[in-house]
Amino acid sequence: MNATANALLAIGASPVMAHAEEEVAEMAALAKALVINIGTLSRVWVHSMIEAERAAHAKHVPIVLDPVGAGATRFRTETAHRLLGEAPVTIVRANASEVRALCTPDHLTKGVDSVHGSEQALDAARALAARYGCVVAVSGATDLVISGETVIRIHNGHPMMPRVTGLGCTATALAGAFAAVNPSPLRAAAHAMAVMGIAGELAAKNCPGPGTFQVRFPDALYQLREPDIRERLTMDET
Amino acid sequence: MNATANALLAIGASPVMAHAEEEVAEMAALAKALVINIGTLSRVWVHSMIEAERAAHAKHVPIVLDPVGAGATRFRTETAHRLLGEAPVTIVRANASEVRALCTPDHLTKGVDSVHGSEQALDAARALAARYGCVVAVSGATDLVISGETVIRIHNGHPMMPRVTGLGCTATALAGAFAAVNPSPLRAAAHAMAVMGIAGELAAKNCPGPGTFQVRFPDALYQLREPDIRERLTMDET
Amino acid sequence: MNATANALLAIGASPVMAHAEEEVAEMAALAKALVINIGTLSRVWVHSMIEAERAAHAKHVPIVLDPVGAGATRFRTETAHRLLGEAPVTIVRANASEVRALCTPDHLTKGVDSVHGSEQALDAARALAARYGCVVAVSGATDLVISGETVIRIHNGHPMMPRVTGLGCTATALAGAFAAVNPSPLRAAAHAMAVMGIAGELAAKNCPGPGTFQVRFPDALYQLREPDIRERLTMDET
Repeated sequence: MNATANALLAIGASPVMAHAEEEVAEMAALAKALVINIGTLSRVWVHSMIEAERAAHAKHVPIVLDPVGAGATRFRTETAHRLLGEAPVTIVRANASEVRALCTPDHLTKGVDSVHGSEQALDAARALAARYGCVVAVSGATDLVISGETVIRIHNGHPMMPRVTGLGCTATALAGAFAAVNPSPLRAAAHAMAVMGIAGELAAKNCPGPGTFQVRFPDALYQLREPDIRERLTMDET
Repeated sequence: MNATANALLAIGASPVMAHAEEEVAEMAALAKALVINIGTLSRVWVHSMIEAERAAHAKHVPIVLDPVGAGATRFRTETAHRLLGEAPVTIVRANASEVRALCTPDHLTKGVDSVHGSEQALDAARALAARYGCVVAVSGATDLVISGETVIRIHNGHPMMPRVTGLGCTATALAGAFAAVNPSPLRAAAHAMAVMGIAGELAAKNCPGPGTFQVRFPDALYQLREPDIRERLTMDET
Repeated sequence: MNATANALLAIGASPVMAHAEEEVAEMAALAKALVINIGTLSRVWVHSMIEAERAAHAKHVPIVLDPVGAGATRFRTETAHRLLGEAPVTIVRANASEVRALCTPDHLTKGVDSVHGSEQALDAARALAARYGCVVAVSGATDLVISGETVIRIHNGHPMMPRVTGLGCTATALAGAFAAVNPSPLRAAAHAMAVMGIAGELAAKNCPGPGTFQVRFPDALYQLREPDIRERLTMDET
């Protein structure tokens, strides 16, 4: 939560983290985007997540879901499906194993780290996008962003990124921030993945390890300007 | 919690974070100061906060309250008032929007970030200080510390500070640490705000972004010595 | 949790943090080691911890316990004993005050920081190891790792380490990672303490303060190679 809040502040967004049933609906209704992350999951929080979704939906606030660890336990897979069913989710951002787990009920992942490449989740991502009418963003060495028949591939990023915890959550948080200001969920998700990848490349330059990377990553987000993006972006759409 | 614990360790304090009803009273009675922060709020934690307040009050342990997000939701505003009512709070440390929300029941803030300058909260801070007999510290470009008729203004700090999450919480934690060793809550709160601002200035020197700032800030707290404070402090009292 | 997850990723392990009763058994059964840390304690989490222990035990997954703050409150001391009693714990990693508190019921510590040197906990550590048939690792200026009659002392480390929160928890997490791949719990615990101490020495070189230390520590873990360990290790066994 701390790392995602700092990434959001670095790009100029205004994050609030809340989980109490007593207030999530009120907070979600105030927000320009709702991000639900099941990383730190508990039964009580699931109720709050559903309350927040309903409030966001009622106010036409875009909803972004990160089904962390779907496939690792039944509770996570079921919760992810429940959150997808309770209100129309705008964007799902996940890794390849999580996306596959959401399409194949008995699929098991190792935990929260993906054991699949993103292309191995292409069909599952398409199916998920079709089933729930949402955009699906799959993080990996190549990121996929899928909406209906459209597939955007983003080749930015760096191998140091999976060595730092919470960067998937940060990608999801950025997708929320971008969905707050971009009427196209497809573009919002693609831009979030692109910004993550490019900031990751900048942060990884001459980087001695994941500690330094964690410092330079919010610095890179803060410093990122349009020319950096134009110069580095490797995105294609089919 | 992690960032505030590290800031407290950096200045030589000995933090313990606890929230279980089963132990908060015991822990608060052992402590030299109790800091209550409603940032990560839930109903269960409110019970623990009240238990902790009572135990602290019974042992004459100073109580410092951070009403994070007061005004953003009714639950936060009501909880803050409840915590102010259950035991005599020594110091309230908040931003301008939160302080205003605690004086005007229907006031709404954007979330946890202040939408007001600290001077816009001067009257509300005075009213709050009078109503609860406490010191009120309002963070902002200029910090205000108010006790009865006294107003201390501290002009230290840096624009990078609101781009990092948890620095308000750290200011509150430092107010607790200083209240543990300084019999004047007004001085304790003012010193905490001054140390925050000066450490922030030192951390922000040639700082490429908020990631680096978060590293240099605890370094600055750790290295801070009396001459740095004397040289940089811009405090006035009326 | 964040710092320990990052340390585990830095050494190439694959951490999952879970606490919901609905899933901990399933998650623990998937894991190669279970680490239980009572730092952020609540009654609900204790149930989950016990569930996780049982599932781990049934699958012969090693269990590593960090009794954070044992001795500071009755709830912590009792919870630690309960967790030691419910399933055979493989390794206990604690500071000297916590180890003493687990052997002397009425012993009180200051909080979560140790007020004793590790040698002052030698007898208590031996007694604890004998009573529960586990390895006991005591962190301090000199680390002790005890199993039956064997005592390993590791003299690596740096005075900056107690100025950063969560490094004890990280030592425990590393003991879990090493127990996942080393059939000797004694060696796993000793190697974890050695790696912590050596990475701490490397991170502390010309280090301006605890902020920088927190960055360099995962960098050092990530970069650590066998020759660094051979060159720096000061371990003796009796």
